[in-house]
Amino acid sequence: MPVALSAPVLLPPVAGVRVAVAAAGIRYPGRKDLTLLVLDPGTQVAALFTRNRFRAAPVLVAEAHLAASSAVRALVINTGNANAGTGVAGAQAAADSCRVVAEALGCAPEQVLPFSTGVIGEPVDLAGKIAAALPVALGALDADGWLAAADAIRTTDTVAKGAFRRLFLGGKEVTVTGIAKGSGMIRPDMATMLAFIATDAALAPDLPRPLLAAAVEKSFNRITVDGDTSTNDAAVLMATGAAGNVPVHAGSEDQHALLQAVTEVAQELAQAIVRDGEGATKFIPIRVQGGRDAAECLQVAYRMAHSPLIKTAFFASDPNWGRLLAAIGAAGIEDLDVSRVQIRLGELAIVRDGARDPDYREEAGQQVMAQAEIPITVDLGRGTAVEEIWTCDLSYDYVRINADYRS
Amino acid sequence: MPVALSAPVLLPPVAGVRVAVAAAGIRYPGRKDLTLLVLDPGTQVAALFTRNRFRAAPVLVAEAHLAASSAVRALVINTGNANAGTGVAGAQAAADSCRVVAEALGCAPEQVLPFSTGVIGEPVDLAGKIAAALPVALGALDADGWLAAADAIRTTDTVAKGAFRRLFLGGKEVTVTGIAKGSGMIRPDMATMLAFIATDAALAPDLPRPLLAAAVEKSFNRITVDGDTSTNDAAVLMATGAAGNVPVHAGSEDQHALLQAVTEVAQELAQAIVRDGEGATKFIPIRVQGGRDAAECLQVAYRMAHSPLIKTAFFASDPNWGRLLAAIGAAGIEDLDVSRVQIRLGELAIVRDGARDPDYREEAGQQVMAQAEIPITVDLGRGTAVEEIWTCDLSYDYVRINADYRS
Repeated sequence: MPVALSAPVLLPPVAGVRVAVAAAGIRYPGRKDLTLLVLDPGTQVAALFTRNRFRAAPVLVAEAHLAASSAVRALVINTGNANAGTGVAGAQAAADSCRVVAEALGCAPEQVLPFSTGVIGEPVDLAGKIAAALPVALGALDADGWLAAADAIRTTDTVAKGAFRRLFLGGKEVTVTGIAKGSGMIRPDMATMLAFIATDAALAPDLPRPLLAAAVEKSFNRITVDGDTSTNDAAVLMATGAAGNVPVHAGSEDQHALLQAVTEVAQELAQAIVRDGEGATKFIPIRVQGGRDAAECLQVAYRMAHSPLIKTAFFASDPNWGRLLAAIGAAGIEDLDVSRVQIRLGELAIVRDGARDPDYREEAGQQVMAQAEIPITVDLGRGTAVEEIWTCDLSYDYVRINADYRS
Repeated sequence: MPVALSAPVLLPPVAGVRVAVAAAGIRYPGRKDLTLLVLDPGTQVAALFTRNRFRAAPVLVAEAHLAASSAVRALVINTGNANAGTGVAGAQAAADSCRVVAEALGCAPEQVLPFSTGVIGEPVDLAGKIAAALPVALGALDADGWLAAADAIRTTDTVAKGAFRRLFLGGKEVTVTGIAKGSGMIRPDMATMLAFIATDAALAPDLPRPLLAAAVEKSFNRITVDGDTSTNDAAVLMATGAAGNVPVHAGSEDQHALLQAVTEVAQELAQAIVRDGEGATKFIPIRVQGGRDAAECLQVAYRMAHSPLIKTAFFASDPNWGRLLAAIGAAGIEDLDVSRVQIRLGELAIVRDGARDPDYREEAGQQVMAQAEIPITVDLGRGTAVEEIWTCDLSYDYVRINADYRS
């Protein structure tokens, strides 16, 4: 049951991008498990991939294709099989998937990027199934296909995820539309997460990658459901240039405006992933301030976000601040002066100077904990750095979902 | 339901140590929540404490007392309240607990060490309750009290934990008897774990601490239930010298024999803690070999042991080797050559050269996973270092226990 999250009702088209979904029977017959994004010539594409050392075949192939060609024409995305841990056969399957799409579109295989999500380590005739479903997909290509794509890329996601922003760049209206999937195996450095963000803004050639990296750093790299990092994560930014604006250059005012819009779309998608975290019943923003630097703020925040004891306490709506203190103390800041640590649940002061706030009353804490969104603020009292991450609780359903996933 | 673990039926006395338990009404009326260990004069005592920056009051007081006096005469241990996050009042309570015990025994307060376990952050009149129960405890002091003590120091432990070894040192028979508690908030660097190991061996003055440190490193620092580190952990070694052996010196053959015995007792206690891990249904030794050094072996082992996805897969008896691969790949070894990674479940080869072993059959994997003990062996294929840790699975009951703990 996602936390205060509903599927998008409107995802505006992005001039220069056409989208289609189809049922390729990759794992379940009849399920729309194939998504195709076709890009107009001249579209600039940047992508970031998982830092897991085990990288799925489609990740390796997509990276190689991006390196070989600057003229990406299509993205082919399948659910039902992650094509990871599949060895040489998997690499061939990913390459073949690109080849069949390229043949249909009349471009080179290197101009197609493959993305897969689903079960790891199961062999599959990916290219054959995609080839069979391709005529239907090509016939369905439409600028308005984003809602269908948001739906089709889901695996254990219970709700489709999409977001958009509109802005003006040099007098031209520009759209940023994004979709994402992912609800388990989520933590920073990319997880079993796929995110596709498109804009019709024109960008200077050097801009897509740093712009994507900056947006991802403040969004997908700030979420964690269970501390696991998958083999398949990818975030892609596509900029078609169809809006006709003067190309956005690094450091310009337009660049700041566009980065803001892309970051907001990415944050909305990232938070949606946490709100739809496997078994999530609470959405928990953890803000750590008063740190010496960003790294130690994140260290404390993730230590808290990965503590099963804290996550189960949130599930139980139990303001168990002892577990919060214990996690902060175990975060590895050797010279932390615990007597300067403050903690708030929402607006409620719960720990003052490293111990229970004398004015704190359990009833007040329980009122905050009963809410579906529970922001925690920790002040380390040793600097000015601030970082915020987003996580969720750990429920019976998390165990059920992950204990049953393959059966 | 603990995994292949039953309470000890025999814990031999250690000459020079008397033990008693009593009901002090600290949290639940009538529950035996107070344990007293009284040591003969001349007993050497060493202790290791949590590395959490939030250290409970009894930890701070015990450390100060150990530094102030080399002649510890008693340990006073309570359950029901951890006396952590309790500020100045908590420190006073811990000091007062020592004072009342010292007055009754006719020694200095610094000769008494306090230990507390239970709920964090609840104020309590610890010293008053202990003082009231003390006459009963003193009257019950007995060399044969170890089984009762193993029982009384439990919190969420479902089974009492004790172990012993006997050996000969210079022709004298020596006993090593230990008890421990702890089943959640367990990870290396000491957890909500208390362990008390006594021996009647005579030791050279410089030996107790390094001997304890070496034994703890290979036992309590190799277990993890949920990755959390508590504010109260402590491991104590007491050596009374009553066996009358020539004092054991560092580097001697006797020292190796004694270290072996103490390590075995500590390992048996540590493994018992994991077998009784909150909600545990499986006991999982994770052995990582072929690493360049111990550090990277442990890094991979803990990454696997802390993965909720792996732990839930074990709960479901699901040989989900994709999750194993993903955790190994995410363990932070930047130059890991994944094509050299091998994984075995028990004796069964499941991953060969970084991908599914061609001879592996799911049915065989499921047979291994159905067992209560599932040893995993990972070979990184890049060196000769080997490390082993012990963990358990993540079940519905883990969530239930930790969501209900305070209610």
